[in-house]
Amino acid sequence: MRAAVLGTGAWGTTFATVLADAGCDVALWGRDAAVCAQITTEHRNEARLPGIALPAQLTASTDAARVLAGVDLVAIAIPSQSARATLEPLRALIPAHAVAVSLMKGVELSTDRRMSQVVAEALGLKPDRIAVLSGPNLAREIAERQPTATVVASTSARTARLVATACSSAAFRPYTNSDVVGVELCGAVKNIIAVAVGIAQGRGLGFNTMATVITRGLVEITRLGLALGADAETFPGLAGMGDLMATCASPLSRNHSLGVRIGQGMTLDEAIAATGGTAEGVKTSRPVLELAQRVGVEMPITAAVVGVLHEGLPVEELAPLLLARPRKAEGA
Amino acid sequence: MRAAVLGTGAWGTTFATVLADAGCDVALWGRDAAVCAQITTEHRNEARLPGIALPAQLTASTDAARVLAGVDLVAIAIPSQSARATLEPLRALIPAHAVAVSLMKGVELSTDRRMSQVVAEALGLKPDRIAVLSGPNLAREIAERQPTATVVASTSARTARLVATACSSAAFRPYTNSDVVGVELCGAVKNIIAVAVGIAQGRGLGFNTMATVITRGLVEITRLGLALGADAETFPGLAGMGDLMATCASPLSRNHSLGVRIGQGMTLDEAIAATGGTAEGVKTSRPVLELAQRVGVEMPITAAVVGVLHEGLPVEELAPLLLARPRKAEGA
Repeated sequence: MRAAVLGTGAWGTTFATVLADAGCDVALWGRDAAVCAQITTEHRNEARLPGIALPAQLTASTDAARVLAGVDLVAIAIPSQSARATLEPLRALIPAHAVAVSLMKGVELSTDRRMSQVVAEALGLKPDRIAVLSGPNLAREIAERQPTATVVASTSARTARLVATACSSAAFRPYTNSDVVGVELCGAVKNIIAVAVGIAQGRGLGFNTMATVITRGLVEITRLGLALGADAETFPGLAGMGDLMATCASPLSRNHSLGVRIGQGMTLDEAIAATGGTAEGVKTSRPVLELAQRVGVEMPITAAVVGVLHEGLPVEELAPLLLARPRKAEGA
Repeated sequence: MRAAVLGTGAWGTTFATVLADAGCDVALWGRDAAVCAQITTEHRNEARLPGIALPAQLTASTDAARVLAGVDLVAIAIPSQSARATLEPLRALIPAHAVAVSLMKGVELSTDRRMSQVVAEALGLKPDRIAVLSGPNLAREIAERQPTATVVASTSARTARLVATACSSAAFRPYTNSDVVGVELCGAVKNIIAVAVGIAQGRGLGFNTMATVITRGLVEITRLGLALGADAETFPGLAGMGDLMATCASPLSRNHSLGVRIGQGMTLDEAIAATGGTAEGVKTSRPVLELAQRVGVEMPITAAVVGVLHEGLPVEELAPLLLARPRKAEGA
């Protein structure tokens, strides 16, 4: 199968490696010519995946027309808030038969749209030609060929199977699912919960608090998902609980690291600078909260993160909010 | 309220501290006179909670009759496999009005009984006088007065409330629940899953694998619990997912540490020696698997742990078993 990956970040480069390992003919598209040249000629992406040897057959180019010509599969791994603007100019280059898989985690700021909706609108694709892929998938570990499972969701079973087949290898094991809404919401909100866990750890709190925040975080993701029509079974699965846990437990997660810095007393700007770039949870927190308010769902952890990141809530007031419960009954 | 805590291990000593902080008049009972003297006169338990200052009013004694005289609440934190033999001689000392709360995690080897059943039989108490307490409750963090939530379950709402009131403080927040079976199974099986996570990490696998094993571990705990009449809502709650995550993520967990050593190539005996004592998951794994087989439930992770710990399965064969799935559908 011929595949293109849009985006030469850590996840885009890693997923291109997964596709190459699974036997696809893959090319990456990126904006940075030096990064593309390094991938093509030196088989590495030192800035994003230091020390990882990429497959020799993997190429990268800034020429989207060349990368997209004749592909069967387009995987998209670009920052969520610039996805629409980046994808729109590529619309005419997508082959008529190709399917797209979104690797992105987030909700668009101005529209509260999920990434598969942004892809559909920007590329002019019908939902049955779009899949989303999400799971406990820290890029670095996958790039090291550690065995990893993931979830591929699409409203079209055929599209989900096509994407799963394209990326399936001994080390990478995709499971298919039809719940696009649930899988995408899990991927978006987990970054916000990871910021909250990081803040708590930055304040010196340990694993009891981490586990409590993650447990209650999954409850609020589930509540939002059910209100938006997601399937209840997605949330305790690999794309829900699995990804949330990997993201919150790993020091590799940018959202988590940013939270730790905020917890230690940095301002948001200082923490972004120290983390070396955008953390998706920072941008996604407000549109997710708006989405929740629109459907009448309480998300106390998300609200607390929005408060600390964007509304001047003192960070020392966050810890009690994370443990506070509006009701005595546990499940609610 | 007057309370006794049976057991001067890390968790018993910590829970006595929680009760004292919550305003109870508490005494600990233990077998080691030196430990009891250190708790009473030096306000510390250096072997189990190094560096922690215990409440000045906390006393400990080897004299069970004195410790249990006139108490309203008996908290029990002794190793699960010796619980029956330790409790039976104390039966006549339990005041007629007192309630018992089990802090123990495990299933009795010879009988496959849950700890609250062992307590009921050994002390001759009816179920409505027994509660169990479980949650993301690493002892050390609670002893440091980090804010922590927990679950108190009893078939009697009155008993659950009494225990919750006795231990509730600014730093320790109990939620009540009626699902004794679910809460106890979660507490027992999480130790087995923690061994599996430790083994995977000892083999060099990272957070993707950890998150996958924990996610699938909760699926198999849930499956067993539902077959035994537990409430489905317990498993995604603090006593289920919360405790599982705290136990598996923390380097403080003995089960996890033992697993890491097994993963690195030690034999079980070497790992037990290096870990400095029993890990509950080692002893509980086989009775839990028997319980599952008796009710016709598949527990592939538990089976793999039993295989490696007790049946000579080579540890390098465990990793594929942890990621293998009998079915393609995710939820099942």
